[in-house]
Amino acid sequence: MRNKPHIEVCFSPDLFHLFPNKDAIVVITDVLRATTAICAAFENGAASIIPVAGLDEAREYKQKGYLVAAERDGFVQDFADFGNSPYNFTPQQVGGKTVVYTTTNGTRAVHLASGYRQILIGAFINLQAVCSHLLSQDADVIVLCAGWKGKFNLEDTLFAGALASRLMGSGHYLTICDSTYAALDLWSAAKSDLLAYIRKAAQFERLRSKGLDDVIPYCLTLDISTALPVFHDYSLFDLQKMNEKHAKIGNSTYSFI
Amino acid sequence: MRNKPHIEVCFSPDLFHLFPNKDAIVVITDVLRATTAICAAFENGAASIIPVAGLDEAREYKQKGYLVAAERDGFVQDFADFGNSPYNFTPQQVGGKTVVYTTTNGTRAVHLASGYRQILIGAFINLQAVCSHLLSQDADVIVLCAGWKGKFNLEDTLFAGALASRLMGSGHYLTICDSTYAALDLWSAAKSDLLAYIRKAAQFERLRSKGLDDVIPYCLTLDISTALPVFHDYSLFDLQKMNEKHAKIGNSTYSFI
Repeated sequence: MRNKPHIEVCFSPDLFHLFPNKDAIVVITDVLRATTAICAAFENGAASIIPVAGLDEAREYKQKGYLVAAERDGFVQDFADFGNSPYNFTPQQVGGKTVVYTTTNGTRAVHLASGYRQILIGAFINLQAVCSHLLSQDADVIVLCAGWKGKFNLEDTLFAGALASRLMGSGHYLTICDSTYAALDLWSAAKSDLLAYIRKAAQFERLRSKGLDDVIPYCLTLDISTALPVFHDYSLFDLQKMNEKHAKIGNSTYSFI
Repeated sequence: MRNKPHIEVCFSPDLFHLFPNKDAIVVITDVLRATTAICAAFENGAASIIPVAGLDEAREYKQKGYLVAAERDGFVQDFADFGNSPYNFTPQQVGGKTVVYTTTNGTRAVHLASGYRQILIGAFINLQAVCSHLLSQDADVIVLCAGWKGKFNLEDTLFAGALASRLMGSGHYLTICDSTYAALDLWSAAKSDLLAYIRKAAQFERLRSKGLDDVIPYCLTLDISTALPVFHDYSLFDLQKMNEKHAKIGNSTYSFI
């Protein structure tokens, strides 16, 4: 008997072919830093975000007049407006604008999930927004961890565990997926001091060695954004704002996709 | 500075292309049940084991006169001598003989690791034998979890965590690998009652539903076998026995590969 939706966790884009349930909503996470930056941009008023994988594509967008966030190895690219830190996306910089964001792991994940029921962007900062939306949908969920060049990483797994903990804790979701159980147990081990736990993550050391670790405490803060980024037609939009706008003009809740 | 060997954990054969360090010893694990059965067979005197992926290949070996362990969905194949449970490999059945063993996930893992420094077979029952050998080698280690049809599984990850815990606890090994840290923390969560923990694993339910769960307590018992299966020239041999044999005839420790 199956009377509740299921949650599964996919630890790497390289394993996503093993998760063929296209009726599921896919929640993509790349906590340090891409999906946190995307949520921050919407929180501060960005109209839309175009995720791109490569610098060449980002440069072409810049030439067309877009705002572009692009860095490699910690250095802002000379053609770009700013780097990839969430701290760059201030209301002054992004309010009302479309932003092009370069993210290799994140863009790959978004393209892989094309054709699934819905694609959301998750991070610790918008955890409850994602959770509330999923609980309203009665749909299966796959958390797709962007990982690092195909490898498992701790920070995305912890986000998956936190989301699974809330969804299953609500009594409305089930799992029969070993990866989900692992993510739940790692979240249990880490949640009392996430910042201390994450020090063993390889990405912590990568960011630290480049002097980019100032954003880590922000990226590990729960529930400070109501942004609910959804991917549609090659761009990301804030589903939360879409719903609010439609509610104001008297429509029923807007179903974006 | 790098003065100690490293341990990495690969959660699935589908991720093994991300672990290119061919100087490493690869420890393959498929705890429920293939690698436990292989250790049990050597513990009970098998001369060698030929792992094969498919039933056709197993049938061909049977026609050539080999002892063959082959089952699908819990049923012993009509051409085979016995099924895949560790309990089948009694001294009477396997003593002094070559056994052909069908294992889809395990055989795939063994073939993937071809070309690496050495390929060992690990299970909870021979954990210390594997650990002691590795500590004598001063070589990097990759634990390759056979998983389930490419997916992450809990039981193989727990073995990886147990091995990493002993190697790193000895002070002779390091890690900078997120998967290894995850395996260590899952092992910490599970080790006080492994049998209770494993009840949430999908493979537990698969074995239970087929009435094959009688072997699970045995598969989760630590350090009851000194077998040290090593893969060489398409077959597995017991490195422990090879070393003992050469010690008896006055040679120095035998280096099998």
